[in-house]
Amino acid sequence: LDYQGAPTGTDIECEGWRQEAALRMLNNNLDPEVGEDPENLVVYGGTGRAARSWDAYDAILAELRELDDDETLLVQSGKPVGVFRTHEMAPRVLIANSNLVGKWDDWTHFHELEAKGLIMYGQMTAGSWAYIGTQGIIQGTYETLAELASQEYDASSLEGRIVATGGLGGMGGAQPLAVTMNGGVCIAAEVDESRIERRLDTGYCMERADDLDDAIEKAEAAADAGDPYSVAVHVNAADMLEGMLERGFTPDVVTDQTSAHDELEGYYPSGYTVEEADALRDDDPERYVEESLDTMERHVRAILDLQDAGAVAFEYGNNIRGQVEEHREMADAFDFPGFVPAYIRPLFCRGKGPFRWVALSGDEADIHRTDEAVKELFPEKEDLTRWIDLAQEQVQFQGLPSRVCWLGYQAADASETRRDGGGDAAGAERLTERARFALRINDLVAEGEISAPIVVTRDHLDAGSVASPHRETEAMRDGSDAIADWPILNALLNTAAGADIVSVHDGGGVGIGNALHANNHVVLDGSDLAAKKARRVFTTDPGMGVIRHADAGYEEAFDEAEESSVAVPMRDRTEGGE
Amino acid sequence: LDYQGAPTGTDIECEGWRQEAALRMLNNNLDPEVGEDPENLVVYGGTGRAARSWDAYDAILAELRELDDDETLLVQSGKPVGVFRTHEMAPRVLIANSNLVGKWDDWTHFHELEAKGLIMYGQMTAGSWAYIGTQGIIQGTYETLAELASQEYDASSLEGRIVATGGLGGMGGAQPLAVTMNGGVCIAAEVDESRIERRLDTGYCMERADDLDDAIEKAEAAADAGDPYSVAVHVNAADMLEGMLERGFTPDVVTDQTSAHDELEGYYPSGYTVEEADALRDDDPERYVEESLDTMERHVRAILDLQDAGAVAFEYGNNIRGQVEEHREMADAFDFPGFVPAYIRPLFCRGKGPFRWVALSGDEADIHRTDEAVKELFPEKEDLTRWIDLAQEQVQFQGLPSRVCWLGYQAADASETRRDGGGDAAGAERLTERARFALRINDLVAEGEISAPIVVTRDHLDAGSVASPHRETEAMRDGSDAIADWPILNALLNTAAGADIVSVHDGGGVGIGNALHANNHVVLDGSDLAAKKARRVFTTDPGMGVIRHADAGYEEAFDEAEESSVAVPMRDRTEGGE
Ligand SMILES: NC(=O)c1ccc[n+]([C@@H]2O[C@H](COP(=O)([O-])OP(=O)(O)OC[C@H]3O[C@@H](n4cnc5c(N)ncnc54)[C@H](O)[C@@H]3O)[C@@H](O)[C@H]2O)c1
Ligand SMILES: NC(=O)c1ccc[n+]([C@@H]2O[C@H](COP(=O)([O-])OP(=O)(O)OC[C@H]3O[C@@H](n4cnc5c(N)ncnc54)[C@H](O)[C@@H]3O)[C@@H](O)[C@H]2O)c1
Repeated sequence: LDYQGAPTGTDIECEGWRQEAALRMLNNNLDPEVGEDPENLVVYGGTGRAARSWDAYDAILAELRELDDDETLLVQSGKPVGVFRTHEMAPRVLIANSNLVGKWDDWTHFHELEAKGLIMYGQMTAGSWAYIGTQGIIQGTYETLAELASQEYDASSLEGRIVATGGLGGMGGAQPLAVTMNGGVCIAAEVDESRIERRLDTGYCMERADDLDDAIEKAEAAADAGDPYSVAVHVNAADMLEGMLERGFTPDVVTDQTSAHDELEGYYPSGYTVEEADALRDDDPERYVEESLDTMERHVRAILDLQDAGAVAFEYGNNIRGQVEEHREMADAFDFPGFVPAYIRPLFCRGKGPFRWVALSGDEADIHRTDEAVKELFPEKEDLTRWIDLAQEQVQFQGLPSRVCWLGYQAADASETRRDGGGDAAGAERLTERARFALRINDLVAEGEISAPIVVTRDHLDAGSVASPHRETEAMRDGSDAIADWPILNALLNTAAGADIVSVHDGGGVGIGNALHANNHVVLDGSDLAAKKARRVFTTDPGMGVIRHADAGYEEAFDEAEESSVAVPMRDRTEGGE
Repeated sequence: LDYQGAPTGTDIECEGWRQEAALRMLNNNLDPEVGEDPENLVVYGGTGRAARSWDAYDAILAELRELDDDETLLVQSGKPVGVFRTHEMAPRVLIANSNLVGKWDDWTHFHELEAKGLIMYGQMTAGSWAYIGTQGIIQGTYETLAELASQEYDASSLEGRIVATGGLGGMGGAQPLAVTMNGGVCIAAEVDESRIERRLDTGYCMERADDLDDAIEKAEAAADAGDPYSVAVHVNAADMLEGMLERGFTPDVVTDQTSAHDELEGYYPSGYTVEEADALRDDDPERYVEESLDTMERHVRAILDLQDAGAVAFEYGNNIRGQVEEHREMADAFDFPGFVPAYIRPLFCRGKGPFRWVALSGDEADIHRTDEAVKELFPEKEDLTRWIDLAQEQVQFQGLPSRVCWLGYQAADASETRRDGGGDAAGAERLTERARFALRINDLVAEGEISAPIVVTRDHLDAGSVASPHRETEAMRDGSDAIADWPILNALLNTAAGADIVSVHDGGGVGIGNALHANNHVVLDGSDLAAKKARRVFTTDPGMGVIRHADAGYEEAFDEAEESSVAVPMRDRTEGGE
């Protein structure tokens, strides 16, 4: 692999920055600093890929280099399949990954089609070219744990609390740092030594313990002293939790981020080294799956037992509950909640989600300029300022410099914006939080304070972009968990609003057939066109979160719609229906 | 119901013709002449609805009346859920109906959610407001039977041939007329007398027989004389086919269009009158389903036995084979082919599909003007001219006057077009068949030769808009039947290209979880904006058919791409892969 991540600087290979942004973001996903296994095109989350094959990757790049400002490239499960004339306000790239007709929408059919070279697992941000390494998830994990501290302990930090978890992969690797940033202590099980080394190298995890006794001892000492501390243990997560139960040790919090959503290529069964398990997978995949599911069953049982013993337990989006409920008929698997209904949904009701932005220049100074801008723009948000300061100190950049923070709808006056993307009665209208910040960045690019365009994108996990009954839409108030009209409307609407890349994926963190979700990118190149796109997309995208949750009957969403004048056509009827 | 179908004339209630078109098309779906059961909002195909409830219908109309030329209305399973600012080239309405996350994507979950008022069955053109009554399907059925005559009998008509079928509903009611337009003889079983009366009233079926013996006798006499003839029998289709076997009578062709895709609300079990069966459905839905599936099993067995006896058998898109394979474990259910691989796929490879257009004025003269235009524009297409002449004679208008004919990609010079929607090097480029005709209509509207705008739309069954392993994508050459990335890309791309309404539906003719498909409308109001939209959409839409079939390795699609300069990014590799 002769290949070193995204091109940087202010010279471009493509006809315009929108195409160049797609090219750089795709390459950034595969930066050895960012993706987990770039040689195999794997970005994160088990087998989440950026392109179907290296041939397909080459062809995508070739098409992007030729693509005109009014053309649109189509990508079907990581392979370029068409180019059509559209127009400037339309997306430059449209992506559909891993989608299967419902009756065939499972791993068995997916793996058959994958073996024929016809489909690719896009995960969430892998196939949509929006992954930014562990720095992407770190902020979400930080927010979730802060919300947990507030709800469960009425505290502003996890000081003195021990969190036990598993999995130090692309996403899970953020856990130890997110715990210590919240002042707490983390014990993390990981079977793959190279993953442990990586998290130690990048400072995401502080130490590695020789064995579980050693880890518990050090963790308890740190917790007693009120010090932030994280330690990795080279052990299967199921075995570790059972070991804690045997020892009568109950962590304050228990969760997990092994790749349990994929029983064949994600999760490791107990009783095997990684090498032995990899060999078993090749030789006898059916036996692998059985062993893997057996371990998951013990794993979930241990989480439930720790919960009984007093730990706060939650599932962290890997569908481990769904797996054992389905394949091991474990009736009480869902007796501990998912993280979304527990900690995230109130934010979704207000259109808040993980807004992320990337400096295409590769220049860290560009992100530092945006850090200042976001603090200036929202001086009243203390948690945001604290997060930006902590991130500057503790979160290493990986690949193209980027940042994440949670922003929502919350319409307000936009008098400070120069290029407002309006065109009709502009300035009179209020703008969303996301739009105000995007327009500010766009101004800074136009004025040369930022050296090259910034791309704004987000996780597929967002307020109005996903249907996932075991995660983002678990236990919706009206029971609409499985309705997938919403992510499709999200993708169509953001296409209509002028996003530059739009994608729709099946699967993701909870596995094939368990979720449908959409994503988008907007390139802020300082132009009026970018302002027009940003104004619209950063209204429609959080707006979908508000209307989706209003439709399900959440008060917070009605409040947001009221305060921010979001149209909810059958509002009276919806409210009356409760 | 105080309500009489679509408003007509040249005065509009909405801010512009694009919104007005949506309003008129929705109302046209529910015109008592067009829809099967407008009082219950049912348009056709079992329970395919135009809106979720009458409240939702009222709210949609209210929103459409207010909608600005740069706003977009969102419809989620027949209910309006949002309005956002987009721009003029974006769609005015975006629709997602009946979509469920894969694991929950079945009738059980659908009916649960439907009972809670959270979802609606959109069928194909019902929930996307593109249904035009039986006149819509008649041309597809006519084309299919003409292709059958050519392939099976090397003949240009069905003269002297007897077709046995079942179901005279919204779609199936077209069968007798399509057979007689092809010169053949049709015997059709239908359990519901009111449906028989309706087809007799509108001239779609010639006669009704007292019993099967009577029907066979009359059919044989007509076939011997070489006369076109159609006869309806008031009997369960399964019983009729078994009756034919008992009598040793083998029709030349056997097929079926009962609503077998829905075992509870579509198909009638044998041994009950319609009234008795309706009562059973209310009292004991589980027993209804069992009886219904038992009858389907006998029904499919009879089709297979008739095939063995020498009849040409094909499934006509109601998933009766899939139903008995799944629920009655009938291993040889798929031993007779679906109509798409048998007769339609070669057309799809060239982007050909059922292009339909509707006169918003309500004035039949407008359609007659387009009839002339299509004949003038394609003088070399003799079958098209014959079809238009036959349709003028034999196909009654229902609701807003409309017409269907199959048009494809086939790029050619567009020198005769005045408003060409180009903007860059316009005129130099060649245009697709669909674009040329749409631009011609747009010119005629601009010049006042047509009194009000024309809407162009199509069936969801089209070349590049559907994934349906039991129908449109059955037995794809590369095995990609179940991959649903394509309809999603179709909807995203047509949104990007400027279609005025875009929709994505799960289900349709083959039932929930068995298909995903997309549709669009373009309003030709004589403006340059309409020309721009038409030029793009009528390239992207048939273009998706060409690239989808090229990707699957079909020669005809490669030929079309070659002749019409359709970009197929990995073409060399795709061809090499075979
Ligand atoms: N909460 C969220 O928002 C969110 C976001 C993305 C992903 N996820 C889910 O979290 C999971 C982890 O994602 P990732 O990107 O880190 O995946 P990954 O595949 O990169 O990493 C998973 C890690 O778990 C380890 N592992 C597997 N089985 C184990 C076991 N039994 N014991 C100990 N270690 C084991 C693997 O060695 C690997 O390092 C996935 O299921 C993913 O879908 C959640
Ligand atoms: N081939 C295609 O392109 C295509 C297009 C649309 C629909 N379809 C499918 O064809 C079927 C019919 O569609 P439709 O719109 O006419 O549906 P519909 O529900 O309007 O009509 C079905 C008719 O079948 C009759 N029927 C039901 N069970 C019967 C039985 N056992 N014996 C005799 N009659 C029976 C009903 O009384 C009804 O009149 C559906 O499954 C539909 O999904 C096919």
